[in-house]
Amino acid sequence: MPKVDLESIAQLNRTGYPAPFNEAVAGRFQRRLSPATGLTDFGVSHVVLKPGAWSSQRHWHNGEDEFLVMLEGEAVLVEDDGPTVLRPGDIAVWPKGSTNGHHLRNESEADCAFIVVGGGVNTGGGYNDIDMLFSPEGTYTHKDGTPYPAKRL
Amino acid sequence: MPKVDLESIAQLNRTGYPAPFNEAVAGRFQRRLSPATGLTDFGVSHVVLKPGAWSSQRHWHNGEDEFLVMLEGEAVLVEDDGPTVLRPGDIAVWPKGSTNGHHLRNESEADCAFIVVGGGVNTGGGYNDIDMLFSPEGTYTHKDGTPYPAKRL
Repeated sequence: MPKVDLESIAQLNRTGYPAPFNEAVAGRFQRRLSPATGLTDFGVSHVVLKPGAWSSQRHWHNGEDEFLVMLEGEAVLVEDDGPTVLRPGDIAVWPKGSTNGHHLRNESEADCAFIVVGGGVNTGGGYNDIDMLFSPEGTYTHKDGTPYPAKRL
Repeated sequence: MPKVDLESIAQLNRTGYPAPFNEAVAGRFQRRLSPATGLTDFGVSHVVLKPGAWSSQRHWHNGEDEFLVMLEGEAVLVEDDGPTVLRPGDIAVWPKGSTNGHHLRNESEADCAFIVVGGGVNTGGGYNDIDMLFSPEGTYTHKDGTPYPAKRL
């Protein structure tokens, strides 16, 4: 297969986050390359963040490694230890099981774009800065287990 | 974990290819980010090709998906169907099991750099343009099964 025609892959702007947690990702546009391009061993997404958008709520995965490489523009990676600016070619990794959550914020005036890869087994995870967990079944709950009326997409 | 300090990861220039197949990759410099950065669910390498270098002999994997994104410079992707130029931001994928082999050749006058991700199970594979296969055990053989005196690295 020659190079992937990104334009041929649907660019999705949806989220399953319950309100008001959905607002921060309103300017996030994702193309899911797995399984669209035939990949099944890991997930790959091409993500564009409009100015002001976040990649997600700050989160961790219990059972899935994540890898990110910046392609265009600039974003701020936020973790427990604070912010780190990421520019094209910069790489970040988040081995599964660490609850030092992460997300990217586009605090610049231009779009930014990155690739994110995920692998492993979805055994749930959580969000550091809000009262929410996600389950392997694709549901969202409060940290006391009470469900949100929302489904992970 | 904040962004990965690429300079802290050993840049390897070795290959297990038997002569003369090793010559084409003499200008390939790889940093293996898995497991150096704690990732175990998939493999990630940052690869630099000097002018004239190839990423590998043209090959396929029986049981492992591969994903590539160009970061810097320009390379020529060669597959059964011919060449495709890859530039920064371009993406290519090779789902496991297809024997339409691939490799990148740096035919430019400058270094190029890319990220490659591999996942799945090593069940061997082969090389399209030379008389060689690789086994799950890390050995190289001729296509008739006769071993080469070499070990995959």
